[in-house]
Amino acid sequence: VFDAIFTSDALLEATSDAAWIAAMLEVEAALARAEGDCGVIPQEVAERVARCCEQVRVDPAEIGRNGRDSANPVIPLVEAVRHAAGAELAGAVHYGATSQDILDTAAMLVAKKVTTLVVADLDVAAAACARLAEAHRETVLAGRTLLQPAVPTTFGLKAAGWLVALLETRARLVEVRDGRFAVSLGGAAGTLASLGHHGEEVTAALAERLGLGVPLLSWHTGRARVVELAAALGAIAGSAAKIARDVALLMQGEVAEAAEAGGRSSTMPHKRNPAAAAEILAAARRASGLVGVLFGAMDHEHERAVGAWQAEWPCLSDLFRLAGGAAARLSEMLAGLSVDGERMRENAEASKGLLLTEAARLALSAELGDAAARRLVEAAVGRVRTEKGTLADALRGDPAAAAALGPNGLAALDDPSSYLGSAGAFVERALAAYRAATGR
Amino acid sequence: VFDAIFTSDALLEATSDAAWIAAMLEVEAALARAEGDCGVIPQEVAERVARCCEQVRVDPAEIGRNGRDSANPVIPLVEAVRHAAGAELAGAVHYGATSQDILDTAAMLVAKKVTTLVVADLDVAAAACARLAEAHRETVLAGRTLLQPAVPTTFGLKAAGWLVALLETRARLVEVRDGRFAVSLGGAAGTLASLGHHGEEVTAALAERLGLGVPLLSWHTGRARVVELAAALGAIAGSAAKIARDVALLMQGEVAEAAEAGGRSSTMPHKRNPAAAAEILAAARRASGLVGVLFGAMDHEHERAVGAWQAEWPCLSDLFRLAGGAAARLSEMLAGLSVDGERMRENAEASKGLLLTEAARLALSAELGDAAARRLVEAAVGRVRTEKGTLADALRGDPAAAAALGPNGLAALDDPSSYLGSAGAFVERALAAYRAATGR
Amino acid sequence: VFDAIFTSDALLEATSDAAWIAAMLEVEAALARAEGDCGVIPQEVAERVARCCEQVRVDPAEIGRNGRDSANPVIPLVEAVRHAAGAELAGAVHYGATSQDILDTAAMLVAKKVTTLVVADLDVAAAACARLAEAHRETVLAGRTLLQPAVPTTFGLKAAGWLVALLETRARLVEVRDGRFAVSLGGAAGTLASLGHHGEEVTAALAERLGLGVPLLSWHTGRARVVELAAALGAIAGSAAKIARDVALLMQGEVAEAAEAGGRSSTMPHKRNPAAAAEILAAARRASGLVGVLFGAMDHEHERAVGAWQAEWPCLSDLFRLAGGAAARLSEMLAGLSVDGERMRENAEASKGLLLTEAARLALSAELGDAAARRLVEAAVGRVRTEKGTLADALRGDPAAAAALGPNGLAALDDPSSYLGSAGAFVERALAAYRAATGR
Amino acid sequence: VFDAIFTSDALLEATSDAAWIAAMLEVEAALARAEGDCGVIPQEVAERVARCCEQVRVDPAEIGRNGRDSANPVIPLVEAVRHAAGAELAGAVHYGATSQDILDTAAMLVAKKVTTLVVADLDVAAAACARLAEAHRETVLAGRTLLQPAVPTTFGLKAAGWLVALLETRARLVEVRDGRFAVSLGGAAGTLASLGHHGEEVTAALAERLGLGVPLLSWHTGRARVVELAAALGAIAGSAAKIARDVALLMQGEVAEAAEAGGRSSTMPHKRNPAAAAEILAAARRASGLVGVLFGAMDHEHERAVGAWQAEWPCLSDLFRLAGGAAARLSEMLAGLSVDGERMRENAEASKGLLLTEAARLALSAELGDAAARRLVEAAVGRVRTEKGTLADALRGDPAAAAALGPNGLAALDDPSSYLGSAGAFVERALAAYRAATGR
Repeated sequence: VFDAIFTSDALLEATSDAAWIAAMLEVEAALARAEGDCGVIPQEVAERVARCCEQVRVDPAEIGRNGRDSANPVIPLVEAVRHAAGAELAGAVHYGATSQDILDTAAMLVAKKVTTLVVADLDVAAAACARLAEAHRETVLAGRTLLQPAVPTTFGLKAAGWLVALLETRARLVEVRDGRFAVSLGGAAGTLASLGHHGEEVTAALAERLGLGVPLLSWHTGRARVVELAAALGAIAGSAAKIARDVALLMQGEVAEAAEAGGRSSTMPHKRNPAAAAEILAAARRASGLVGVLFGAMDHEHERAVGAWQAEWPCLSDLFRLAGGAAARLSEMLAGLSVDGERMRENAEASKGLLLTEAARLALSAELGDAAARRLVEAAVGRVRTEKGTLADALRGDPAAAAALGPNGLAALDDPSSYLGSAGAFVERALAAYRAATGR
Repeated sequence: VFDAIFTSDALLEATSDAAWIAAMLEVEAALARAEGDCGVIPQEVAERVARCCEQVRVDPAEIGRNGRDSANPVIPLVEAVRHAAGAELAGAVHYGATSQDILDTAAMLVAKKVTTLVVADLDVAAAACARLAEAHRETVLAGRTLLQPAVPTTFGLKAAGWLVALLETRARLVEVRDGRFAVSLGGAAGTLASLGHHGEEVTAALAERLGLGVPLLSWHTGRARVVELAAALGAIAGSAAKIARDVALLMQGEVAEAAEAGGRSSTMPHKRNPAAAAEILAAARRASGLVGVLFGAMDHEHERAVGAWQAEWPCLSDLFRLAGGAAARLSEMLAGLSVDGERMRENAEASKGLLLTEAARLALSAELGDAAARRLVEAAVGRVRTEKGTLADALRGDPAAAAALGPNGLAALDDPSSYLGSAGAFVERALAAYRAATGR
Repeated sequence: VFDAIFTSDALLEATSDAAWIAAMLEVEAALARAEGDCGVIPQEVAERVARCCEQVRVDPAEIGRNGRDSANPVIPLVEAVRHAAGAELAGAVHYGATSQDILDTAAMLVAKKVTTLVVADLDVAAAACARLAEAHRETVLAGRTLLQPAVPTTFGLKAAGWLVALLETRARLVEVRDGRFAVSLGGAAGTLASLGHHGEEVTAALAERLGLGVPLLSWHTGRARVVELAAALGAIAGSAAKIARDVALLMQGEVAEAAEAGGRSSTMPHKRNPAAAAEILAAARRASGLVGVLFGAMDHEHERAVGAWQAEWPCLSDLFRLAGGAAARLSEMLAGLSVDGERMRENAEASKGLLLTEAARLALSAELGDAAARRLVEAAVGRVRTEKGTLADALRGDPAAAAALGPNGLAALDDPSSYLGSAGAFVERALAAYRAATGR
Repeated sequence: VFDAIFTSDALLEATSDAAWIAAMLEVEAALARAEGDCGVIPQEVAERVARCCEQVRVDPAEIGRNGRDSANPVIPLVEAVRHAAGAELAGAVHYGATSQDILDTAAMLVAKKVTTLVVADLDVAAAACARLAEAHRETVLAGRTLLQPAVPTTFGLKAAGWLVALLETRARLVEVRDGRFAVSLGGAAGTLASLGHHGEEVTAALAERLGLGVPLLSWHTGRARVVELAAALGAIAGSAAKIARDVALLMQGEVAEAAEAGGRSSTMPHKRNPAAAAEILAAARRASGLVGVLFGAMDHEHERAVGAWQAEWPCLSDLFRLAGGAAARLSEMLAGLSVDGERMRENAEASKGLLLTEAARLALSAELGDAAARRLVEAAVGRVRTEKGTLADALRGDPAAAAALGPNGLAALDDPSSYLGSAGAFVERALAAYRAATGR
């Protein structure tokens, strides 16, 4: 319901009933031509059938309703084509194929279009992350673990982490697209008996015409490529959710370190809601459920399944919408993200140095040993919690600690940017990988 | 995609974007009137607002697209109503409510309609089961466990099991409907501050007008009633799946004990596919995924969630379609089911008495002790497997066994209906419960 | 792995292999006695078998490994009992029952113990919520929606919301326990043929002895009661997760409004992690997955399932641990929760009145109309964002607004507790329901 | 509960608490040595710490219980090591690492061992499939779609389909192992601040020592590699489930075309249950739920998650057991599978030629046109259903059909092996791929 909220117009269209019908008709047309190529049916007949597939107009809603008798939309669609083709050509329509051949191969065509859209959105999102990582290499903020302030980090490194998540999940989607999108053609039960000895040849010609791969066997009941695609999409939704979660948390009133561009409330004029983040998080929750269903639906019976397959293509179509939708919203959210580096520093400093307890402990430990260091820092933390002053102040007040740390050491404990470790180097690693992946 | 295949036209309509919009407008209208009732806004204004809600026409697709800014459809819908109402009335539209109040309460209205449809379908399905249980009280077939022939049972008892599953899951849905469908009204953050001290009063008036319950508190982030509804629907889908699984198995060519009325193949004229069963099994797989997502989405943040709630209503709407669709297909499947009692007996007898090994063992055990009985039966089973003749024949050939069983005991082992235990009594229990539940 | 982290010692024990074995032996003992009661086997034999079940000692790990041959632990367990009972009694052990009878009924016994533990933990948690609701009836804090400050609320109302969630989900668990925990006894294929005409009688006697209900039919393949139990537990985990999510968010460094008692970090002495919250949230995520699997596993084949049933009891056992574990951690977390009401007010006031934009808009609207009110408030919000001063200050600076609101109206806008609506009344509703439910 | 039933002894051990502890200690030891290598701590100290990690003995149950305070087992484990190491070395133990570094990297070590076991089991299973495909290249049986007899196929092609499923999912697991198993080292919040400028160097040295990859960044909250592993395992479980489903269906009494070697019943001596199939199907159901939870748990907050991460490693460990267990049972099931080719042919012939309706239709269509062919075949099917004789007989009785088909054509319709299309070629494709993958 209200799918538009959770996806893009382009994905709505690419996954509509009409788009699935167009893909199925494209498969039927290519199949006829492939059979013409291989001499299974006369080329002239093949061409006329293919044109008929290209020109026929059907009502998607009617196809759906008429699909109830056969538990799939292919049979009513083939009937519509046969009717349009006329009695003479009817026998050459859908020749040798089974419903599942058409729908599985059509799913790959839909997947190709969806992948193009998703990759484009991921590219926009990744570019935004790269920009943020570069721009905020030195923007210090509190690193937060289990939602507690931990040690300082940089917003650049946070953005670099987002970037790497997008690069990795994008790479996997491309891998699946390039290696695993294939036609499926098995005929009634996987033997392609209706094509006589032309089975392999027609399969190859069909694949060639559709720009898809040739599988070892038709994959009527071997669904590894379905779940690989599902997993690739699920990982993209999940990575988008991680970023959305961060943005929603950064936007909290008490934190206020970043903000989405949009987000309206129905009652409160001052509110700026993380609307895109909410949409991404919602889409990702639903996507993970779909992934689980698809993995659970691999137990196809014998040569074609009763139920497991019929659950697949609707789930896949929903997953296209939702995982793709998450990527689409992410690209918008990141492109419009405003970042308040000043507020980040203020929040970091509001910890009164407690972000640097690890630093203090390690520095003291080098001089006084681990146990003493722990004792001193714990005592200082106690004082920071109950008194005025920072961690540095508290340690300055302890002669042993003050001596061990020295003035520079104490000063460093008042400066979160003194304790950033490899943050800069890590940002650079991520950006180098980004540049390598994109050639930018 | 092609939702019509997996649900009924009535459910398609009851869960459409238009239906959700109608429900939201019904809530807005009732809210205005309730506020008029309680003096929060003038009654005459309330009435004009309510009528405007009843008359406004909006484009569902546009509401969806415009909902992106706020991650829900309520804000654009309220804007449309305000625009239609004009500047003077605009302030009284959606007065005091938050988006979630409207959508959550609308979900309950949609749920009521859906429940009516689902209960009606379950009633048809249960009636069909009751008929089958009565008609086939004495129709013997192989009881099958782990898909292996076990001991005899009756088709009447199988149908009684289906009946009980439907009675139990129907009862729970009715329980949820009667006890847990309630309005939610909390305003911006659950305090109903905008209604001053009229909060409880308006809530009660709203509930009265909509025929829904009054909750202890608005349930913006307390989602127990959502998952209770989801669970009730999921159990219905699961029970339908159990029956569909049985029907698909009974329809196997080698079994051929029952058949759906419809089911077409695209290539093979002889084939009669379990199409409804496939649709039910597919719907149930998807339903269980949605149930999982809804249970996983209970961790709403603070006063209203970022993501968890936005995942809920689309999942709920899909679940209405799919669980309801499973019930709809089930009612058709069972109403049209043909049962071949003769074939059941033939299949049972084809086991050459192996369905009665337990009977033989128990009968022998009473005379000869457990260990000897096991030995004799195992030996006899070996002979049945390798030679001609039935279990009775094999035991007849063993003097000790023959003596222990006697002629009547041996004869009984050739008659599966001699070993049905409480099957008849159990059928009667189920039918009595059915009659008690329905007053038939 | 490391289950102890996510559950209590009592639940670890109650769901251990040993506990399941003890429950199965309890069922076998009660079955023998019930059969003695009904004259199916001699009472003296029954008693000796029952004692043997009570006294036999088995190695749980060995039962597991030996269960591989039959895909369940009952057969090796029965063999162990028969071996201990000796040849004479062996035939009376497990008489007439099938493996699933024993395991399903044992699951109900385990469920009873688990339910007792869970209800006790929920009671502790609910009592803590009730105390918090009472103590903090007037503790004002920012209501937060989509993680953004919205309008003021009270911590009392937040705790009341938690309380209601616990009351509702506890009530459902008790309902399932009281109405749906039943024995299952069907014999090899549901007919209880092995018990002749004693089927119903033995079932009733078994139920009586075990303190469980009598089902209409054995529920070998009618799994509604399994998913009802799963749903009840899942809802408890989900409600615990909602509270845990809130606590983790309240504990954030920048918010600091509440804190768990414990929570250690491995590297940073100052850190106080929301450890219990993390455990609850983790347990709830896993629980929701288990719920989904259980709902998906209702499609049992024929008289007993191949796979669906064998997936059930391990999932149920895990769900006992995790949902129960969530309740256990919740009770500890809430009992030890420290609440900083002062910090709540500070944070609320740090919004510079922006929590009261709705209040301002409504107040102005009454005097100047909706459109003018919106304009004035939006302008004021703009000034608060860029200049010093609160919302009240900004509106005071606008003559029209200042006149419309008057001095009292303006003053109210500086006091979040002026805009709490029905918060107090709602707290009272929740506490009244709590008192009614518990008799306190 | 009773995990042994669903997995192998080797996997039980490799995923036990003790194994996780051993892996964590291996990481701590390697970390110390890597820090020694890079001069972060003195080499001699490093060596002593490492040896202490190798020698310390801890009680896994105690580690679990003590892990409650921190929501993970690492902190109590580190404390145990520090205690064993003594005050002098304590500071060098776990130096610079955070809990998650240790547990995530340990998970990769556990995953490596598990992968070795799983790949070995898949190899056994694949070899069995290859043998079956070769041996049964020409064994004809009914191809079954939606559980209905469709057209003939060969058992060789069915086994080839299983083989391809195993090859594909094995390949993906190996890909993930080789490309995505990496250390994670980020320190408190991903900056490795505690290691100063040695972060990248120590990470590389740690990876080198553990035989794992070096990630771009530590993956505290970028969980793509976790879900990629989960997906690879889930696909293996799903492929095993497909095969198990087929075997269970083939074992049905009325089908009886194949059988597992084992499978005992508690009551019926004649029964031979598909026990391994049941275990595989159960494991796969649970595995798909775990996959869904893991994909749903990618929304880690900020620098380390509260709940999402803590849900991961238990789910991963369960998934290791269950997906690996499915592979283990599969290897046993397939190695012991008996195939009854004669029964397959009998069953195929029992269809009285109805498996060849497509063949008849296509043959007639070539002579008489599509519409006439359909009419003739439908009429013939009707006669086969109601009269004696096969499809060929029925068509022989129709002059037009008889003339069109000729004697050879009619004879072919009585021989299912006349209509196998590319079955043989497809078997060869699969075997060639198998040989290429394994070098056999």
